[in-house]
Parts: sequence; structure tokens; C-alpha cells
Amino acid sequence: MGFGGIRAARVLAGKGFDVVLVDRNNYHLFQPLLYQVATAGLEQESIAHSVRAMARSWPGTRFHLAEVNGVDLAAREVRSAAGTIPYDYLVIGAGSVTNYFGLKSVEEHAFDLKELADAETLRNHILTAFERAVVEPDPARKRALMTFVIVGGGPTGVEFAGALIELVHFVLAKDYPELSTHAARVVLVEAADKLLASMPEKLSVYTLKKLRSMSVEVLLNARVVDAGPERVALHDGAVIPAHTLFWSAGVKAATIADSLDATRAAGGRIAVEPDLTLPGHPEVFVIGDMSYLEQDGSALPMTAPVAMQMGIYAGEAILAKERGITFPSFRYRDKGSMATIGRNAAVASAFGMDFRGYPAWLIWLLLHLYYLIGFRNRIVVMLNWVWYYWFHERQVRLITRREDK
Amino acid sequence: MGFGGIRAARVLAGKGFDVVLVDRNNYHLFQPLLYQVATAGLEQESIAHSVRAMARSWPGTRFHLAEVNGVDLAAREVRSAAGTIPYDYLVIGAGSVTNYFGLKSVEEHAFDLKELADAETLRNHILTAFERAVVEPDPARKRALMTFVIVGGGPTGVEFAGALIELVHFVLAKDYPELSTHAARVVLVEAADKLLASMPEKLSVYTLKKLRSMSVEVLLNARVVDAGPERVALHDGAVIPAHTLFWSAGVKAATIADSLDATRAAGGRIAVEPDLTLPGHPEVFVIGDMSYLEQDGSALPMTAPVAMQMGIYAGEAILAKERGITFPSFRYRDKGSMATIGRNAAVASAFGMDFRGYPAWLIWLLLHLYYLIGFRNRIVVMLNWVWYYWFHERQVRLITRREDK
Repeated sequence: MGFGGIRAARVLAGKGFDVVLVDRNNYHLFQPLLYQVATAGLEQESIAHSVRAMARSWPGTRFHLAEVNGVDLAAREVRSAAGTIPYDYLVIGAGSVTNYFGLKSVEEHAFDLKELADAETLRNHILTAFERAVVEPDPARKRALMTFVIVGGGPTGVEFAGALIELVHFVLAKDYPELSTHAARVVLVEAADKLLASMPEKLSVYTLKKLRSMSVEVLLNARVVDAGPERVALHDGAVIPAHTLFWSAGVKAATIADSLDATRAAGGRIAVEPDLTLPGHPEVFVIGDMSYLEQDGSALPMTAPVAMQMGIYAGEAILAKERGITFPSFRYRDKGSMATIGRNAAVASAFGMDFRGYPAWLIWLLLHLYYLIGFRNRIVVMLNWVWYYWFHERQVRLITRREDK
Repeated sequence: MGFGGIRAARVLAGKGFDVVLVDRNNYHLFQPLLYQVATAGLEQESIAHSVRAMARSWPGTRFHLAEVNGVDLAAREVRSAAGTIPYDYLVIGAGSVTNYFGLKSVEEHAFDLKELADAETLRNHILTAFERAVVEPDPARKRALMTFVIVGGGPTGVEFAGALIELVHFVLAKDYPELSTHAARVVLVEAADKLLASMPEKLSVYTLKKLRSMSVEVLLNARVVDAGPERVALHDGAVIPAHTLFWSAGVKAATIADSLDATRAAGGRIAVEPDLTLPGHPEVFVIGDMSYLEQDGSALPMTAPVAMQMGIYAGEAILAKERGITFPSFRYRDKGSMATIGRNAAVASAFGMDFRGYPAWLIWLLLHLYYLIGFRNRIVVMLNWVWYYWFHERQVRLITRREDK
């Protein structure tokens, strides 16, 4: 269950409906912290929370573990591998998948962070690369094993780049005395002329300076066009020898959108009415990353805050419909955006003000703890953060599986 | 690295040796708590600790991540996929693997708990079985999905049975209001006429009574002879419809023992000299589960305390050899054994006394926390235990992977 779906369910629970939650995972995943799992800072379990644990206290709510294959809008049925589920109202918030924009070689060799298992796989790959570097006799391959190319200068790319270089410099440098870890390279590739394009200019500039001071190599106006297991090729013909490519340069609507037979906007998103319903289907709400809606002339971003507000709106709109009350159009209240860069360093744009450095970092920490679901998860995450802050230690540097890309 | 190996390394570190640690995993695994990972009580990361994190503070120690394929005793070399490693002294403690005693169908369908990934796989399987039971229309298959057969009444079987029935009755009963979880069956099958055969008689009797009072079905003098994906067959022709079979009825020495060309004892273990060396090779020590040694007329058990004492002994014996000091034979000091059954219930035989119920349970908790490596791990484990004790909640009931047996 995503950010939108669980909030819609919470609004509808106990209001006399038969609420059926359908998801292929039995947990809510706090995606914004996946990069910390991938960089050995958090255990995967601490950013996921059982849907059944939540639904227990929501009267009239049932959970159904299933992969949804499609929706029959005419018959008002959701089709899953485990059978069909009829509905009176449908709220779809299946999120997004990584968009490689048709770059086949990149899709084949790049890692991404959308699912819980992706983060564990990427962590195992990063740590294995260092283990292989230890025994690699060829200096060029040794360096390529310690070179990490990150594509996309949005929040995910920036946060991952910062967390990765800190993992190398603060933690792995002590773990691998036999390696010159200062020779490790983290290369952040961004197609635009600045990082965090959605943020105010001075925060973009701060982020660029800060990452460069942490020795992340930031390439602006650059694009990755091809990839192999040991190299990444840029638009200008330059080739970076690297065994790890991380892609956070784009997302598109989840494939279930295909079955809705609706107008698609950028990224395959579904153009919705101002009340988030599917055109011609006032009983079907499309929320979160799957949904395309413009507000004040620009499209709403594919972020967790938008999904959360849309989820609450969808729940309340259904309540209003049932009571015969007219309900105003959806309006996103932008509470700001933020990204953490590293220790004591983040950027935040909120309440009409810009924050950077330590204050932004503190705001980031507190808000992420606040939105994390499950009290025990908050304690475990906080414990990991305090541990890292005090001891420069990330405990989860375990290679838990031997599979690799 | 197992219990024996890390202790041998710790003794040898900083004594002027070049100590090379070789393991296919980059962590020490606290195997005695694997069953708690499998029953959603602990996250897998909390019972593993990075070897490099330990080796950092051990001067002269290097870690080498590799699967060891064999040992060339004549050339004094360890062969791994990543090349050969020469040695002056060799300490082998590769542990044990599950012994299915040639029962092919059981090996194919049963789960076991030897590696970290096994525990996650088994947890995912158990939780998926309940999800499938929810949507299963046939009452017989529904019940079979909720039936768990555990083979082996030793500590692992007893602890897993107790933890599993508590998971079902205390936690899943609340998660699955649509299921009659009281109809779930946990069947413990033991070939002997009592449980925990190595324990004093009255503790065996207590364990049997306690498990039965928790509604575990204990079958004594019974053997599993065949298995399929949905059924388990016993020696007397009885068939238990069950989708989950857990095997803890035997272990045998790890396959690397085959390359040592030595006399094998029960379970494929290597018969060692009284100083734990391989006959004819005073420079090669075989410790832990791989090693076969009799003391006072009976074979030393394949347990963590034996491995730990053997590891320390091997390190000290090598120091003594280098200094030309004669060193006494290995002697296991039995500090006792224990097993936990459930909430406030355990059995322990230690200091010449028998404990059961709450006192034994408290001793069990404290000793396991003490032997767990990594201070942060201790905190996380304790947090999970307190949480469970107070709230009857196990937080890690996540189906993290979709793979299944």
C-alpha cells in the first residue's frame, strides 16, 4: 500500500463501508528512505509496516494480498490473479515504475530503488564491489569497481549520492584498509544545468557546492546514453569505467494504468478530473504518481505529499458522494520540499522560507520520523541515525544474498 | 564466520601473525536466533554482524570474502574461487549443513534454518500461507495451509514450535479476523520417546507438557518418511495435510570436510586428535560442528558453546606451538544447555542445577543477549523482545520477497 491508498482507507474505515485493500505487498513501504537501506544505514524492515497491523484498528476494512492485473470499468470489477473483486467506488494509487526512456542497455545494467528488495540488492551489490576490488589485481578494474554513476539530480539522486560518498569515506574507509577508498568515485549525472530543479535557485547552488565539497563529481548538462556491466557512456562520447549504475532520472505510471483506457499525459499518467476521478467514471479515483492534474498552470509533482493529500481527498469525496453533498475540487497545499545531502546538510523549502545546512537537516530528520509508520520503526530508525551520527558507523553493511545483477 | 572461527581470530590477532579470515559471508551469523527471524520476531540484520567491523580492531587481521572449495594439505593452501591462500596454520570451522538422511522428497519440500536467507524465506512462506488460506474456498486446503509440521525435538525444533504457535495465537489471530486461527496446527515430530533428549528427564517432561498446553501437537516415536508440497507422510502410513514442513532432525559436517581426506565419524564429522588437529597434520585444526571428539565416553555435541571453546583453544594452541610450549589437550567445560519454549517458559540445565519456567527464560534471554555480537544488535533485539512481551506484537511480519519453495 502506498502513501495515498492507506490514507484513503483510513478516512473510509468505520464509516459503514466494506473497504477492501488490495496490494501485491503485505506492507506499506516508506519509499523516501529506500536509499538509506541501499547505503547500509537502515535495515529493510524498519521502513516497512504491515498493512494488516494497520487495518486491525480500521473497522470494516479487509486486506487482500494480490497482484492486480487490470480493472473492468464497465463491470466495476478489479481483476487479480486470485479472482475478481467487485466495487462501488475504486481508488487506484498503484504508483510509478522507473522510466528508462527506451534505453535498453541502461535498463539491463542499472539499479533503481522502487521496491524493498531493490534496496537490499543494491546494498549487496555495492558491498560486493568493494570485496571484489580488494582482490582485483588490475588497477583500472579496481577503480571501476569503486566507481558509482548516479543518473538524475533530483532528490533521490542527490540523497543517494551524498549517503553513498559518506558510506565510502566514513565507514568503508575503515573497513577496507587494504583499499585506497579516497580513489572511489561517485559521479552524479544530471541532464539539466542544475540539481534539484524544483527547488529555489540558491538551494540548488548550495546542493551543488556541498556535494562537490564532499567530493561527489557532479556532471551537469550531461546524459547517459549507453551502459555495460563495466562502463557507462555519456552523450558526448565520454566513457566512465564503472561497475555500478544507479538510475533515478525518471518514473512513469504503473502498468495497471494501461488497462484503464484513459487519456495519458506525460510519463503515462492518467489525466483526471479536478475531483481526481477518471473522466466518465465518477466512481473511480486515480491518485498519487499515476494521476495527472495541473494546478496553477503546472502539473502536480509525483511525490509522497501529493499522494497523501490525494488519498485523504478521495476518501472524503466518497463520503460526500454517499451523503449527497457537493465537494470542492482537489487542491494541493504545497507544504514545501526537501532533500538531505549528508551529515548536518540538507535543503528545505517550506512555509515560504528556504532552509539549508543544519536547520534543514534537522527538519528533514524530524519530518521523516513523523511520517514513518509504526512506533517501533521510528525507534529503530532513530537508533540507527544516532548511531551513525555519533560513531560514524552503519551497522547494516551485510551482503545478505549472493544474487547480483 | 562462525562461533569458533571468530574466537580463534580474536586470540591470534595482534600476536604478530598475518591472520586471514575467509568466509563466503561478510558477517558473523548468530544462528541460535534464526528461528526468531523465521517467526517474524526479529529482523535478519539484528542477528548478523559485519566481520570487517570486528576485524578493524584486530591488528594483523585481513578478511577475504570467498567460498572455499577445498584444502590442499600437502601444499598448505586453501583453494577458493578467488585464488589460493597459503597458510602456516589452518583453522577450519565451516560448520554443518542440514542432514536429510537421504530422504529426497523431504529435502525437496522441507525448509531448514542454517543461513540468514533461509529464515527470511521461511518467514515469507509462513505469512504467505496465511494469506493464501484467507482466499482458499476449500476447508481442507485452508486447514492444510495453516498446518506446520516440524521434524526434530531438539532445541531448534522445540524453540521454533513454541515461537510459531505463539505467532499464530498472539499475533496472526488479530491480523486475520477472517480465519479461525485456532484451527491452525503446529505438529512436532520426534523419533525418540522424549523431547530435548540431551537434557535431564524432568526438563524433557516439562517441555512436553508445556508445548502441549500451548496446543502444539507433539508426536513422539514418530518419523517423517515422505513429503509433497501439500502433505507429510509418517512412518506408520499416517498423512498430515500440510503446506509447510520444517526439518531440524539432523546436521552433518559442511562439504569442505570431503576435501580433507580424513577419517569421518557420525554425521560426516572429522575425527580429530585430542588437541583438535587433523591426524598427521599438527598445523591444521578442525573445530566446531565439523569436528568429532569424544570426551568421557561420549561425542561432544554440535553446539555453539563447543565451537566457541574450540576456537579459543585453537588460537591458544597455535600461540603455544609458536612459543615452543607444550599445551594440554582440549577439554570442553560444559556450562549447561537451554532452550526456550515460549513466553516466560524455558528450560535450562546449568551449574549442576535445573531451571524451568520463568527463571530459565530469564537466563536464556540474558545469555543470548550477552553472546550476540554488536552493541546495536543487542539493543534492537532487546527492543523487539520487550515490544513482543508488552504488546504481543511481532513487527517483522513482512513478506519481503515473492520467491517461494
